Order: sequence, then structure tokens, then C-alpha cells
Amino acid sequence: MTDDDILALLHRDFDALLLDVGGTLVAEAPTGTAVTDLRARPLPGVVEWLSLLAGRMRLAAVTNTATMSADDVRALLDPAGIGEHLEYIVTSTDVGAAKPDPAVIHVALELLGVPAARALVVGDAITDGEAAIAAGASFVATDRGFPDALLRAVTARRGPFGGAVQRVPLLDTSAAGRARDRLAQLTKPANSLGQLERVSEHLAAITGCCPPPIPRSPAVAIFAADHGVAASGVTPWPQHITAAMVRNFANGGAAINAIARQVGATVHVVDVGVNADLIDMSTVRHHKVRFGTDDLAVGAAMASAETIRALDIGSTIADELVAEGHDLLVTGDMGIGNTTPSAALIAAFTGLAAAMVTGRGTGIDDAMLTHKTDIVATAVARAQGFLDPLSILSEVGGLEIAALAGFIVSAAGHRIPVVVDGVIALAALVVADALVPGVAAHVIAGHRSTEPAASAALDHLGLEPLLDLGMRLGEGTGACLAVPIVQCAARILTDMATFDSLTTSA
Amino acid sequence: MTDDDILALLHRDFDALLLDVGGTLVAEAPTGTAVTDLRARPLPGVVEWLSLLAGRMRLAAVTNTATMSADDVRALLDPAGIGEHLEYIVTSTDVGAAKPDPAVIHVALELLGVPAARALVVGDAITDGEAAIAAGASFVATDRGFPDALLRAVTARRGPFGGAVQRVPLLDTSAAGRARDRLAQLTKPANSLGQLERVSEHLAAITGCCPPPIPRSPAVAIFAADHGVAASGVTPWPQHITAAMVRNFANGGAAINAIARQVGATVHVVDVGVNADLIDMSTVRHHKVRFGTDDLAVGAAMASAETIRALDIGSTIADELVAEGHDLLVTGDMGIGNTTPSAALIAAFTGLAAAMVTGRGTGIDDAMLTHKTDIVATAVARAQGFLDPLSILSEVGGLEIAALAGFIVSAAGHRIPVVVDGVIALAALVVADALVPGVAAHVIAGHRSTEPAASAALDHLGLEPLLDLGMRLGEGTGACLAVPIVQCAARILTDMATFDSLTTSA
Repeated sequence: MTDDDILALLHRDFDALLLDVGGTLVAEAPTGTAVTDLRARPLPGVVEWLSLLAGRMRLAAVTNTATMSADDVRALLDPAGIGEHLEYIVTSTDVGAAKPDPAVIHVALELLGVPAARALVVGDAITDGEAAIAAGASFVATDRGFPDALLRAVTARRGPFGGAVQRVPLLDTSAAGRARDRLAQLTKPANSLGQLERVSEHLAAITGCCPPPIPRSPAVAIFAADHGVAASGVTPWPQHITAAMVRNFANGGAAINAIARQVGATVHVVDVGVNADLIDMSTVRHHKVRFGTDDLAVGAAMASAETIRALDIGSTIADELVAEGHDLLVTGDMGIGNTTPSAALIAAFTGLAAAMVTGRGTGIDDAMLTHKTDIVATAVARAQGFLDPLSILSEVGGLEIAALAGFIVSAAGHRIPVVVDGVIALAALVVADALVPGVAAHVIAGHRSTEPAASAALDHLGLEPLLDLGMRLGEGTGACLAVPIVQCAARILTDMATFDSLTTSA
Repeated sequence: MTDDDILALLHRDFDALLLDVGGTLVAEAPTGTAVTDLRARPLPGVVEWLSLLAGRMRLAAVTNTATMSADDVRALLDPAGIGEHLEYIVTSTDVGAAKPDPAVIHVALELLGVPAARALVVGDAITDGEAAIAAGASFVATDRGFPDALLRAVTARRGPFGGAVQRVPLLDTSAAGRARDRLAQLTKPANSLGQLERVSEHLAAITGCCPPPIPRSPAVAIFAADHGVAASGVTPWPQHITAAMVRNFANGGAAINAIARQVGATVHVVDVGVNADLIDMSTVRHHKVRFGTDDLAVGAAMASAETIRALDIGSTIADELVAEGHDLLVTGDMGIGNTTPSAALIAAFTGLAAAMVTGRGTGIDDAMLTHKTDIVATAVARAQGFLDPLSILSEVGGLEIAALAGFIVSAAGHRIPVVVDGVIALAALVVADALVPGVAAHVIAGHRSTEPAASAALDHLGLEPLLDLGMRLGEGTGACLAVPIVQCAARILTDMATFDSLTTSA
């Protein structure tokens, strides 16, 4: 997406940008710096972007200050080439209330004559976001710099993923209630089918129907991608195994193929970032964003635009599978090294220490586990400075994980149940639920992976998996094994007699 | 079976009967009774049966005594009408070694000139059995009296059940080893499919093939019967629900029908003892032994002959289903009140207290649970006097439980895997494994029922179920839900590529 694209989209969505100052436009001064010693050092890209924006968007600054007035701030920003682009500057000192109080935003909007719904607040602190939400404005965090924030501000609400986000409904509690009532009338003692009955109700809530349709055409989507962190010694498997396994999926020789065949599910393989040219494989859906991520041990795994592209791909695949008539989706994944970004994401979103969530993946020794845990801890420490789940996903995630998040959100938007697999899918679900609060309620957990991060994510999301068979393969195998149980949960509501009918016919 | 039938069968299997005295032929004298005060009081049926046996079988007594010689014992037994039928009497005092030492049996056999393989020892103590086994002779316990022991001695080794017992093979550890080797070569990290891989090996061991055949035609057999104990207030459900549910199974409206339909299993309903005339139901297999058992709260649930008949029916059903091409059998059950005999059997065989194994069944309150526990405790106290698993099964069991035990043993005899359901099937399996030690190793546990006796039985047998969904319905529902997992366990061995082949083709 070019700068002009971003400008055009900003212009379509917003009339005004309300900009925080310290940490957003200029480097935050060390605390305790005397006002007279303050010098404005613009952050990368800020001056260039303000020049581009000026005249196209209404611009104002909204800043918390201990003592400074608007004029003081303007005096500071002018020499840096920033002040000239700001129509108004509103400080907490001037209005007598600091963010998260929305007073500075209210005042700025009044001065600009712009309604809150057409304003985007850009800031680096959670208080900026809270003030924006309180004022009814949009917000984007400068987690990864000012230009990146503008990109995310316009793309997150557009494209297949952005569209899916808008479609995610609430669970249908009325349908769930009807399912509960029906379960109570069926020819069995109350609650004697245990968790199966909870899945029956859940399917009614997800699909909005009672009885919910019996899923007849389950589809497993395996998103495959490589991970730069594989080079940092977190796995004994060479990276080319990812491509080899994609070929194996395509040839029908992997565990997921065997299991899917047995339970009547189709398998769909999506290259979203494998570090090899797979274009000769005709049965693979080719959506490669890049040839694997960068190494999250040393820096960001991927750019925001790449993450959003992967989210869109996942959403598109779900859209396609639903359009093809599939009525139950199953998450699958392949990517050598992908338990590392998964552990990092789950640590970042649950707040658990790296040592609590880092596991042995497909089998590593104690020394490698210690090394892997250190890498997760370092990556999470970087990600913890970010406000936007998208930024965290970009920093320590992976392409197939982003795609899975998009896949899950899109399925929820279609009211199609998704069975999630192990720790990779759960990392994606944790991200998805942070991006779209409540979306995890549309998901059925298939199997409890032995990876510690999986249980951490399940607890975090309040999910209870159907199976616990000590599996840790990925590919969607655990979720796919649970498909017949989900189908049975729907079928009992359709097929079973009631005690009333039994008495009548007997 | 008439007395003449029993005599004829005894004659075919044995040349000699070696009879314990106290507790077997005559009532045990109170300990401390002076020898001069001893009076022989024949136990019920003993004099009549010795008269019938005399001249047709060689008869001798083999008895432990503190000080008495053979002549002393004969002097005691003669006035009671017993001594005259005994060719020889051998006492531990005469030979200088008490049972379980086999000396008395060796001496008696030498006197009679009969080989051990053609001798049946009849006694009331575990030491009698141990001595018989040490001598290479057969043994039957007088748990339920002398005539009943003779009946069991001849029927247990005959009929469909007796035949099945003879056919139960050892697990094929060589096939299991080949499965383990193949699993290590498949395109997945070692052991990453967890318990699924253990099931793969188990299927190879059961079937004796590697890869084991993928079960394509699973069949659920639901054995239905009523329980006299229902009248003692152990369940809130009226007994006629058993018959109503059999009709529901036949009409396809029960939970097991819905689940079986979804997983591609056929359902076969067997009336082995429902307390209602079901003869109009054409799809039910009619093998009613009697109209429900007697109330185990007040006495034996059923006679040995009835128990054996039910074992034979279960075996026959398994034989039929296997002959019809079914390659995976699933245990099902229906019988209002049947968690009570199940708890009693599991307590009797595990040695656990009634309070540890008695549960709420399909849903009872605290008062009813206390009452049910008392009934289980009383029944188990009676059963604890018995040596023969068959006697315990008759005393506190049920007709469908006996049939399930026969079903399981016969399936094992055919090398066909059986998936067992909850507490009723596990009670049957505990009995089966006592009757045919090791037969439980041929079985896959489908689901961990919430009934406490189920977990007790699983621990006792060393089984780990595939599912734990909080179910407690019975009918075979938990086992049937596990069928696709068993099928997948077989399929991975057949369908998956090896890393070798992957490298070659890549």
C-alpha cells in the first residue's frame, strides 16, 4: 500500500487526526527534565507524514502536560517542523483534566468543528486510547512508529479481515436456551450426556439455530509458513521440513490426511509463507506473503502490512470454504519452529512468564528448552511495549498464526463453528479474541495439546477441549479427531425422541 | 439342565471327584469343638448327589484335619449316609501336609489310579483350589452349595461361552512391536500422536496384524435386562422404562441411535432379561433368560444356570456379529437400576468399600445414595464368601452384565477389538477378566463414566479411556463416540507416509 493509498483511505474514514505529542510525534523527554531544557526530537517519519497530511486532514495535538499551555507546546514543536502543521494544540493544563479524561479531545473536536465519529486519535499510551473511546473517537497506537499506526488505522477496518470483524455476531443465547430446553425433554436422564450436551447448546448459540444443522461437510485448512526463529536453534528440525510436509499433505500421506479421510473431512493446504517455492504444487492454495518471517529472537517477525495480508488470507480462505458448502471448519497448521511464536504470543496476551508457557514442541532437550525459553522471554519483553494486538502479532507471531486468526474471525462472521487444534491455533485464537473481543466464544476446542502454552490459552479463554490424548503434532490432527463428537452433539438434538413421544407411541 | 445331563457331562470330563469335607460335604464345626463332640450334618443336596454319583464316578474325600486319621473321618461320616459312597478318605494328618499342599490329592489319585487331568476337586476354600491347581486337577468351589458346584463344573467349560474362553489368545506382542517400529518411521515427530499411537499398537496386538485392519463395520450390541433391586428404591426411574427404552432403540430414537448413525455403527438390541413381553418387536434379538433378576438387596440375583445362559447369549451375539462381518464391537446396556449390581460387582472384585464405588447413577439424591450404598455393602458382604467369579456374578450381578462379559470374551476369542462403555460394561469386564485372566487386555476403554465404580474398575484393570466427557448415560454412548478415534488409530498405520518415502519423492 502506497502513501497515497493510505492518505486516500484516511480521508475516506476521517476528517481529523488528534495527535498525542510525547512518544507519538516527538521522543518522550526523560522524566524530571526541566521545561526550559526540553527540545523536540521528532520521531521517525513524523515530519514527513505531517507534511503529507497537512491540508488534506484537520490536524490537532492533544497532550497531557504538568504545567505547559498550548503556546508553550507550540513554542517547543515549531523549531522541529511540527507545530506549523497543527491547527490547534490542547493541553491537559489548559482544560484542567488529563487523559484518560476525554476533555482534551472534546475541546479539540469543538475547535475543529469535527464530530467524534470522524476523528482518529493517534497515541502511544493506553490513556490515549481510553480517552479516545470515552470521546467516541477512533484510536490507533503508535506501537511501531507513526507511519505504521496510520497504515494500521486504515487497513484494520478494510479488506476481508476487516469485513469479517464487522460481521461477527453475538452468540445466540435464545437458540442456546431452546437447545437446553430440548435436551431436557430427550429420552435420557438430565445432563447424562455431559459435555456433549454443552456442545449441543454451543452449536445452537454459534449457528443461531435449534436444532443446529448437523455438520456434513467439515473442512480442515492447513496454513503453512516458515519462521525466522528456526535459525536461532529452537527446534531440531530443519526448515525444509515445512515444505516437505506441505508436499506430504498434498500427496495425502500425513497424519491429518489419514484422520481427515476417516472422519470425512476435506483437507485444504494454504501456503501463506513457506520458505520455498511451492508453485508447482497444484493442489496447494498459493498465498505466500513472504518466504518465512524474520527471526523474532532478534527483532520483529514481520511488518504490519504483512500481518494484515495474512489475516486477510485466512479470512478469504474461510469465506471460500463456506462458499464451497463446508459447514464445519477445522484449523490446521504447519511451520517448523512455530511453537516458539505461539508461546510468545500466549505469554504476551496472558501475562504469564516465558518459563510457564514454553514447551518442548515436537521434542527438544533441556538445553534447547532453556534457550527457547530465553528467546521467548526476550521477544515478549519487546512486545509488552505495544498496545495493539496487531503489533504484538507482528512482533512475535507468524504468518500462519495470523492467517488462522483471520480464518477464525471470518468463520465466526459466517456463524460457522470452528474446531481449533493445539497451541498454534490457540495462539491465533488468543490474538483473534484480543482483536475481536468475544470471538473465542464461537470456537470449539478440539484437543488439549501437551504444550504448556495450550493449557494457558485455554484457561485464558475459558475453553474446555473435547479430547485430551497427549497429542502434540499440530496439522489440525487433534481438532479433526474431535469432529465426530461435534457432529454427534448436533445430531442428538435432531434425531433423539422425547419422553413425551415415547409415552405416546408406547 | 437336568441332573442326568449334569451326570453325563461330569462323566465325559472326569473320572474322579475329590471332595473336601468340612464346608463341602458337611457343615463346618465351630472351631474348638472336641473331636468326640463332632457330628456330621450333611449340607443340602450332598447325600442325594453322592447317591447319584456313586458307581458312576470314582469318589474320594481329601480333607485337612488337626489330628484325625482317615478312619476317624469315616467313623464320623458313616452315620450321616456319606461315608459309604467314598472309596477313599485321605487326611492331612495321614499324609503330613495340609492343603494348599497337594499331597492329599496326589495320594487320593494314586489310590484311585486316576490321572490328575481327569479329576475334579470340589471344595469351599481357596486352599482347596490352590491344592487342585498344584496337582494339575480341575477345581470347582461350593460357593452356592454342592449341587450348584457340580452344575458349574460341567457348564463353565461348555457352550458358546466355554468355547470362547478356550479361544482367547495372548496379545500379539510381535505385531505390536511391528506397529511401534512403523509408528517411529511415519512423517511425524516421535510419539507426537500420544494415546492414538498406543491404540494403534494395541489394535495390532489384539488383531495380530500390522497394520491392523481399519475397522469399517462397527456394531453396538445393547443388552437389556431388568433388576429386582429396582424395587428396593435405588433409582427414581420406574422399571417399565427399560422396556420403553428398548422400544426407543428399536425405533432409532435414543442417544445411542443418534451417535451410532453419525459414526457409521449399526445397533443391535438384545433382550436378555427385560421384565416385559417384547416379543412383538421384530428388530430385537429375543434371548430372554427370565423377566428380570431377583432383588440382590435380599438374596441372590440369579441362579448359576441363568448366569451361564446369559454368558452364552453374550458370546453367541458376538459370534453372530463377527460372522455378519462386523470388525469392531461396542458394548451397550440398558436396565433400570443396573448401576447397583455394577457397583456391587466392582466392589467385590476390587475389594473397595461400597461407599467408594456407589454413585448417583442417572441422578439420585443424598438419601437415596446412602440407601443404595447400604444395599451394595450388604450384597458385597454376601458375595465375599464366594471363590468363583461366576458365583459372585450370580449373587450380585445382572443378566445384561453377564451377557456383556460373554460378549467381550467371545470378541477377544475372535481377535476382534471391543470398545467398552461405562460402569456397566466395566463391571462385566472385571468379571470377564476374573473368569479369563488377561481378557481385559483385548479391550479398549471408550469413555470414563462419572460413576466412581467406573474409575475404580479402570484402575483395577489398568485401562485408560479415550474420552472423558462427563457422560453417564450408558447404552454404549461413550464407547460409540470413541469409535472414530479407534478407526483413526488403525488408519494412520495404513495411510501415513514414512520420512524415507518423503525424502525419496521430494
